Amino acid sequence: MKTTVGDYLIDSLKEYGVKHIFGVPGDYNLSFLDQIDDSEDIEWIGNCNELNASYAADGYGRIKGMAAIATTFGVGELSAVNGIAGSYAENVPVVKIVGIPSSKVVENRKLVHHTLGDGEFYRFNEMFKEVSVAQTILNEINAKEEIDRVLRECYLYKKPVYIGMPVDLATKVINVSEKTSYNLESDKNSLNNFISNVKSLMSKSKKQMILADFEVNRYNLNKELQEFVEASNLPVSSLAMGKGVIDETHPNFVGVYSGSLSNENITNLVKSCDLAFLIGVKLTDSITAGFSYINKNITLIEVHPLYCRIGENLFSNILMKDALESLKNLNIEFSKNDTPHVSLINNFEAKNTPLTQKRFFQGIESFLNENDILIAEQGTSFFGSCLVNMKKGCTFVGQPLWGSIGYTVGALLGTQIADRNRRNILLVGDGSFQLTAQEVSTMIRENLSPIIMVINNDGYTVERLIHGPNRKYNDINMWDYSKLVSVFDLEGNRSISFKAKTEIELMNALKEADNNRDKLTFIEVCMDKMDSPQLLKDLGELFSKQNSY
Amino acid sequence: MKTTVGDYLIDSLKEYGVKHIFGVPGDYNLSFLDQIDDSEDIEWIGNCNELNASYAADGYGRIKGMAAIATTFGVGELSAVNGIAGSYAENVPVVKIVGIPSSKVVENRKLVHHTLGDGEFYRFNEMFKEVSVAQTILNEINAKEEIDRVLRECYLYKKPVYIGMPVDLATKVINVSEKTSYNLESDKNSLNNFISNVKSLMSKSKKQMILADFEVNRYNLNKELQEFVEASNLPVSSLAMGKGVIDETHPNFVGVYSGSLSNENITNLVKSCDLAFLIGVKLTDSITAGFSYINKNITLIEVHPLYCRIGENLFSNILMKDALESLKNLNIEFSKNDTPHVSLINNFEAKNTPLTQKRFFQGIESFLNENDILIAEQGTSFFGSCLVNMKKGCTFVGQPLWGSIGYTVGALLGTQIADRNRRNILLVGDGSFQLTAQEVSTMIRENLSPIIMVINNDGYTVERLIHGPNRKYNDINMWDYSKLVSVFDLEGNRSISFKAKTEIELMNALKEADNNRDKLTFIEVCMDKMDSPQLLKDLGELFSKQNSY
Repeated sequence: MKTTVGDYLIDSLKEYGVKHIFGVPGDYNLSFLDQIDDSEDIEWIGNCNELNASYAADGYGRIKGMAAIATTFGVGELSAVNGIAGSYAENVPVVKIVGIPSSKVVENRKLVHHTLGDGEFYRFNEMFKEVSVAQTILNEINAKEEIDRVLRECYLYKKPVYIGMPVDLATKVINVSEKTSYNLESDKNSLNNFISNVKSLMSKSKKQMILADFEVNRYNLNKELQEFVEASNLPVSSLAMGKGVIDETHPNFVGVYSGSLSNENITNLVKSCDLAFLIGVKLTDSITAGFSYINKNITLIEVHPLYCRIGENLFSNILMKDALESLKNLNIEFSKNDTPHVSLINNFEAKNTPLTQKRFFQGIESFLNENDILIAEQGTSFFGSCLVNMKKGCTFVGQPLWGSIGYTVGALLGTQIADRNRRNILLVGDGSFQLTAQEVSTMIRENLSPIIMVINNDGYTVERLIHGPNRKYNDINMWDYSKLVSVFDLEGNRSISFKAKTEIELMNALKEADNNRDKLTFIEVCMDKMDSPQLLKDLGELFSKQNSY
Repeated sequence: MKTTVGDYLIDSLKEYGVKHIFGVPGDYNLSFLDQIDDSEDIEWIGNCNELNASYAADGYGRIKGMAAIATTFGVGELSAVNGIAGSYAENVPVVKIVGIPSSKVVENRKLVHHTLGDGEFYRFNEMFKEVSVAQTILNEINAKEEIDRVLRECYLYKKPVYIGMPVDLATKVINVSEKTSYNLESDKNSLNNFISNVKSLMSKSKKQMILADFEVNRYNLNKELQEFVEASNLPVSSLAMGKGVIDETHPNFVGVYSGSLSNENITNLVKSCDLAFLIGVKLTDSITAGFSYINKNITLIEVHPLYCRIGENLFSNILMKDALESLKNLNIEFSKNDTPHVSLINNFEAKNTPLTQKRFFQGIESFLNENDILIAEQGTSFFGSCLVNMKKGCTFVGQPLWGSIGYTVGALLGTQIADRNRRNILLVGDGSFQLTAQEVSTMIRENLSPIIMVINNDGYTVERLIHGPNRKYNDINMWDYSKLVSVFDLEGNRSISFKAKTEIELMNALKEADNNRDKLTFIEVCMDKMDSPQLLKDLGELFSKQNSY
C-alpha cells in the first residue's frame, strides 16, 4: 500500500488511540500540519505556547493512554522539553514530533533560522535522549520501520519518544506493508519463581496489606488490581501519585498513604503489617513525607509493569497483568482486614465565614460527583486534594514527582480534550497559575467547560513553608484573576467568572457552574497567605531538612 | 579573605556589571536567593515563569554586557533552556545558575522531586552542554576557581555558561584569594600577517564597502567600528541582526543590507564593489534573504571578535579591537563613497484611515527619539522595523537567527531593567504575544514604563506568508488585548491602555504615552490579516522554497 510519511504517522497514532495532536505551528512543520488538518481521524489543537502544549499532551496521555505533540525545530522543541521530561519522570506516553529543516539544508550545514548558527542539526535530538526512551530522525527509507519501532517503545514503556520529521519528508510517498504485530508474554519460569517466593513469604507472614500506585493507572490495570484486592480481601491504600488507582468507595480502600504523615488508621495498619504488596509503586520524597518509609522489618513484594522484585531479587520479564492474575489465584489465606474504610463528606454546610484551607477541601469533597476528573497543582492544591475522598469513577491528576509548577493549567486542556463529557475540576495556586495562565484561552476557543479554581493566597505558599516565609522572592504581582477570563472570551458567551472569599460564595459559584455546564467556570478563591493543608505544613519542614543535611 | 560560595558568586557577577538576577524561586535555590535578597549590590527580579526569565536575561545581557538567571533544578532549568539556546545562537553572555539538590541527596541517589525518579542528577547538566560554552557543578573545594573560570568564558565568548549550586553549598564559607587577572592580547604575527594580506588585496581592489553586524555590538566595539568607517570614509551597511551597530544618522550609513531583498541603493553599491569588510558578520538565512549573498567575485575580509578570515585563510588569535585599530591606521586609499545616506522620516502626518503595515512603520520612524531602544519580534514587526531608520544612540533588539516567537516580551523586561531611563518600545504580533504575555505583569510590578504595541492581525501572519495562509492552524483565539493590562495592574495607576485602528488613533496613543512617561503604555494596533512589510512577503516565498528543495 502506498501512503505518505506524514499520513502513515497519523494512521499509526490513531491505532494507539491518539485522536488529537497538540502543538504550535512553525515553518518546519507546516506540511505535516496540513496533513493533520486534512485528516478526518485526528484533530489539531493549537496551543498558546509549546510548554503548555507539552503539559496538555501529558494530561491527554494520562486519560487516553497515549498522546502526541508537534512543534518546530529548536525553539519549539526546547520550549516543550520540560513538559516532556515530566512525562518521562511520571511515565506518560507522549510522542514528540519535531519538524526539522529539509534534508538538503541539513546536508549542506546551512546557517538557517532556529539553529545555533553552527551548521549542527542534531544537538536538540541529543538533548531529548535524556528525557525519552526512543528517538529517530525519519527519512524515506527508514520511515515505516522507525515509526513502528518508536511508537511501540512509547506504548511499552509509557515514556516519551522523539520523532524528527524533515519538512520535505511529510508528503513523500512510501510503501507500507502490514504492521508487525507484537505479542508480549511473561517469562513463565520467572513468574513461577516469583509466585513460589511469595508463597514462602506468606507462610511466615501474620498480617498483610496492599499499596498501589500510578504504574497501575498507566498500564490501565485498575480492574485487575481490584480483582486481587477482592480475592485477598486485604486493605488497600494508594500513594498520592496514584490516587484513584482503586475506587475510593471500595470497602477495602483505607485512604492515601503519606509516609509518616499518614492518618492514624493507616499508620496503625502499616505498623501492624509484616508484609506489603507494592503494586506499581515508586517511593519518592513528595509522596512519602521525605522517605519516611514503612517500618524496616516489613517484607515488600513489588509488582512493576514489566518485572517483579522482592528485596534484592529481581524477577524479570513478568507483565503486571500476569502477576496480578497469579496473585489473585494464589489460593492461600490472607490476613483479616480490620481497618476502617474511609467515609466521604457528602453534606457540606457552607457558612458565611472566610474560607480556610481545611474547610475548602471539605467543600470540594462534597462537590465531587462520580466520574469527575480532579486536577491538582503541586503545592497546597495537591496536598489538600490527595486527602479528599473521591466518588466512584473519579480520576485524579497531579505531578508530585516532577512537580513543575504551572503544569496543571496545560494538563487540564489535555484531560478535557481527551473526554469532553467528563466534568474536569482544576485546583491551582495563584503563583503556579501565572506561569501558564494563557492556556485558558485555548479552552475558551475549544468551547471546553471545566471548572477552574485559582487559589489566591498572595504568592508561593508552598515555597514559604519550606524557606523564606516573608522573603520578597516568594511574593508575586497580584492579578485581577476573575477578570482574566473575559480577556480570552471576547464575545463573553463561553465563560462565567466568580470571586469567592467565604464558604457561601464558593458553594454558590460551584452551584452556578453546575447550572452552566456548557461554559467554562472560573473561580478566584481567596485564602490566607500562610494557611495550608496540614500535610503540606509538615512536609515543608521535612523538605527544609532534606535540603540542609 | 573569607566569604560564602553564594556571596562570592554575587560579588563576581557584580564585577562583570551584573546588577540584577532574573528567575523563579524553587526549593533548591532558596538559600542562594536569600543571599541575593540580602545583597546591596544585586537585585532579584522574580519572573512569571522561567522561559520568560531566560528571555529577560538575554535582553538585559544585550544592554549591560552580561546577565544572570537563577532557577531550580530540573523543572526550572528545562523551562529556561530555549531562552538560553537563543542566547547561545546570538552570542549573549548569560550566566545560568541552577539550585541543585544537596550533595548528600545526590551521593545517595535519592528519588527526590524535580528529578526523573531514577537517581540520576547530571542529565540536565548534560543537556545544557549543547547550549553553553562552559559548565560546572560547584563544591566547597572547586567553588572559587570554577566561578572564576566559567564567568571568564562567558565574558570572553559572549555565550551562556551553566553553574550548578547544591542547595547546601550557597552558605558554606570558603577562602578566596585575589582574582586571577587575565590580559588577553592579540598574536602580533597573526595580526601583521592579516594586515599585509589586506594591503595586498586592497592594491588590486577598485571599490570597497563595509558590512557590520551583531558581533560588534556584543563586544561593545561600536566606537572602534565608527573610527574605521571615518578613517576609510567607506559606505557602511549593517545586517538586520546587528541593526544599530553604527549610528544610523552617520553620513556613511547607507541602510540595512538584506541580501537580494535590499533596496536599490544598497543593491547597486554591492554590485559595484569588488571587496567588502565584514565586521562581526554572520550570514544566516533570515537576514540575507535565504542566502542570496553578495556577488561571488567579491573579496570578503572578515573580522570576528577573536579571529579574522579571508576566504579559506584563518588568522587566529586576533582581537577585533586590534584588527579595527590596524585597519583604521592602514594609511592607504579607499574608494570614494558615492552611495546616498538614508534619510529619516521626521514628520508623519497621520490620517483618519485604517492602519497599514507600510504606514505604521513610517509612523514609528517619526516617533523614535534619540537613545530609544526598539525591540521587534521576529515576524512582521522585525522585518518592518529593520528598515526603520533610527536616530542617534538608538539600540535595536531582535532575534532573527534563533527566532523564538514570544521572545521580545521577556526581552523587553530585561532591556528596561538594564536601564530604566531609556524609552523602550516593543513591537510584537498577537500570535507571538500570546506565548509570553504574562511577563507584562512583572513590568507593572517593577514600575517600568515601556511602550508595548501588540499588532493584532488575527493569527500567525509570518507563517501564513510561508505556508497555509488560510489553514486553521495559523488562527489563534482573539483576545481583548487592551483589557489585559488592567488584569495585571490591580490598582490601575501604573499603566494606560489603548486600541488603535487608524493612523490618528495610533499617533494619539503615542502622544499619550509621552504625556505619561511614568506609566506603562499598552497599545493594541489593528491591521489586516494578510498585510505585511514587503520584505517579509518576499522572504516568506524564499523560505517556502528553502523548505521544499
